[in-house]
Amino acid sequence: MAILVVVDGMGDRPVASLGGETPLEAANTPHLDGLADGGATGLVDVVRPGVPPGSDTAHLALLGYDPYCDYTGRGGFEALGAGLTVEEGDVAFRGNFATVEDGVVVDRRAGRDVEEGDELASLLDGVSPDGFPGVEARVRHTTQHRCAVVLRGTGLSRAVGDADPHVEGTEVPVVEPLDGSEEARRTAEVLNALGEKFHEILEGSEINERRSTEGKPPVNRLLIRGAGVVPDLEGFYERFGVRGSFVAPVALYRGVCLSAGLKPVGLDESVVSMGDVEQVEAEAEEAAGAANSDFLFVHVKGTDNASHDGRCGDKVDVIEAVDAMVGELRAAHGGHVAVTADHSTPCSIGRHSGDPVPILVHGPEVRPDDSESFGEGSCGGGNLHRLRGRDVIYELMNLEGRVGLHGE
Amino acid sequence: MAILVVVDGMGDRPVASLGGETPLEAANTPHLDGLADGGATGLVDVVRPGVPPGSDTAHLALLGYDPYCDYTGRGGFEALGAGLTVEEGDVAFRGNFATVEDGVVVDRRAGRDVEEGDELASLLDGVSPDGFPGVEARVRHTTQHRCAVVLRGTGLSRAVGDADPHVEGTEVPVVEPLDGSEEARRTAEVLNALGEKFHEILEGSEINERRSTEGKPPVNRLLIRGAGVVPDLEGFYERFGVRGSFVAPVALYRGVCLSAGLKPVGLDESVVSMGDVEQVEAEAEEAAGAANSDFLFVHVKGTDNASHDGRCGDKVDVIEAVDAMVGELRAAHGGHVAVTADHSTPCSIGRHSGDPVPILVHGPEVRPDDSESFGEGSCGGGNLHRLRGRDVIYELMNLEGRVGLHGE
Repeated sequence: MAILVVVDGMGDRPVASLGGETPLEAANTPHLDGLADGGATGLVDVVRPGVPPGSDTAHLALLGYDPYCDYTGRGGFEALGAGLTVEEGDVAFRGNFATVEDGVVVDRRAGRDVEEGDELASLLDGVSPDGFPGVEARVRHTTQHRCAVVLRGTGLSRAVGDADPHVEGTEVPVVEPLDGSEEARRTAEVLNALGEKFHEILEGSEINERRSTEGKPPVNRLLIRGAGVVPDLEGFYERFGVRGSFVAPVALYRGVCLSAGLKPVGLDESVVSMGDVEQVEAEAEEAAGAANSDFLFVHVKGTDNASHDGRCGDKVDVIEAVDAMVGELRAAHGGHVAVTADHSTPCSIGRHSGDPVPILVHGPEVRPDDSESFGEGSCGGGNLHRLRGRDVIYELMNLEGRVGLHGE
Repeated sequence: MAILVVVDGMGDRPVASLGGETPLEAANTPHLDGLADGGATGLVDVVRPGVPPGSDTAHLALLGYDPYCDYTGRGGFEALGAGLTVEEGDVAFRGNFATVEDGVVVDRRAGRDVEEGDELASLLDGVSPDGFPGVEARVRHTTQHRCAVVLRGTGLSRAVGDADPHVEGTEVPVVEPLDGSEEARRTAEVLNALGEKFHEILEGSEINERRSTEGKPPVNRLLIRGAGVVPDLEGFYERFGVRGSFVAPVALYRGVCLSAGLKPVGLDESVVSMGDVEQVEAEAEEAAGAANSDFLFVHVKGTDNASHDGRCGDKVDVIEAVDAMVGELRAAHGGHVAVTADHSTPCSIGRHSGDPVPILVHGPEVRPDDSESFGEGSCGGGNLHRLRGRDVIYELMNLEGRVGLHGE
């Protein structure tokens, strides 16, 4: 079995409090170091050198697609990953349950842990905006404040801006069309009408009365962003002849995997409310037990959570949990493994950066190089040199003999 | 003189029976090691990381062309290399003399050494398929069971599938059009009719009666594959201002060189029936004596033959013959030399792989690096890092001062 482990935001920069090492370098990672020692290492520019990848484009690239040509917006992945059906002509979005006062967004996440998310989403699911009886919205709650939304109807376009101001303290923006087409103009109007309709329904719901008595902020707006459609990708089986599966607890990454034709390994829903380290442990158990696949994709989120918050020490802890997981995976499955990240999220800046990410590849057909440990610095000297994100899966599949000739 | 030596399928993976070394690492190669020591080394992804190059696309790339944009199928190279004329509108193919029984291919090579190849080809040369009087086939035998075929007529397309099942024990496939064009549909029909016509002619030939009395399998079918046209390439002289020539005994590689405007160095026809090591020695003599050229391309086939058969030790022997050849070339010609491969063919798997290939560049203008020997591992640490195939000729021509400015 070939395994690709993507440790979200793992790449970092030297940290003074870690003695000038990166979190990966500072972490105690005997399994990863052993694989680097016996395998080959390098660096990966997931999108392009110096360009910070988005979470969606990064995963698209790491699964072998072109992050520029094959990218059709985030929404399609969010919706697929949330379990919604997305048909041709549909436009999909990411949504946030939020709290507004007099049209101003005061909390983009309505307190973050929206326990009533499923109930709230069911109030909005199936609604048509006033004036557009032929357009219907499907709404699905995923985790905390997060939702996915699909618009279904004729003449819709993904060329529309966001209904999310992205910062608090400002008004909910009017959605604008992003090109001159009639479809974009109409879709923008649909979204503006839908935003008002959702606001009306949420404001009048008993759920907010209940939340009010519990001292919680009202959930009275769904902020919609990231218009997209599901890209028409050549699937993994068609491209490589492999049966692929994935372990990924977050909707967006599940959606990218599904669009590539990978099948989910059943992960208990409780995993989403676990701590970062516990989540890695639960994933390790699922991934080690995965069978009937030629390829397994494993996504770890906790490293990125810690990075965005600047929690360097916690990032080290999650990386050590990943090390244990990779040890379990090597014990459970033969074949080739690659471990890398979707992007760097330096703790010092708390957001995605364009620094390349380290990679290691290990297995029976790998030409070993001189690298002895897994870290940004040591991988910089490895014989894989500097790859692009979309090369990674080809490197791995080549070792398994799964890439067809170009030419004859 | 600048020299590019391409050692076919030389790249490999660690081999247990060679103490974990690759054949190149295990071979005794004092000349190549000396050049690596005094020059610079690196790795080359001839097509793209992880993608196994075909023989045609690989050579196109190593001569500086784009293996995706500039590739127009194998057939044109085969025909050019066989000495056939290919005009605009012609579609060319690779052909195999084969043995069929009741429509089933029992030997794709009709015993492999088809001594009557020239005679058989002359029976088919100039034939028109029934129902298509305006279309004529030109057929030329090259070596053993191998032929090239050119279809001449109006309204032909290279968007057609193969009339070769590629495996034995199955029926000769019906050629299918690969796009929706009228030309592709017609060309598929032409090929199906031509296959039957060739079958009829071969079945009725006296040559097969003679072969039968000698206990040889009948040659009663020409399996046609690899539809292509000759790409319209900017020639070597136009691009670099150099007079280029080549030493290459196999039709396909000769064809790629001819399409790039290189001129053949006369190699005795007997070279094609020599053993792999003797062939290298004959090529060495020709290449060392080559004059009146600014650039010489030398192709060695024996390494790939040994690799496809999993004959690791023989691969080592051919590499040692290449080492001696390179020594002779350095003694005979000044200037710069690059030695690399068109792809890896690991002995363990016996087919082209997407592993990068080693390269060395040596000569007066090269910046030497720390590499001390020529092998996959040591080249991985060289200062050329990881190039693409089409960069190789530019690296070499740059050292000779032959690459024009891009911009002003």
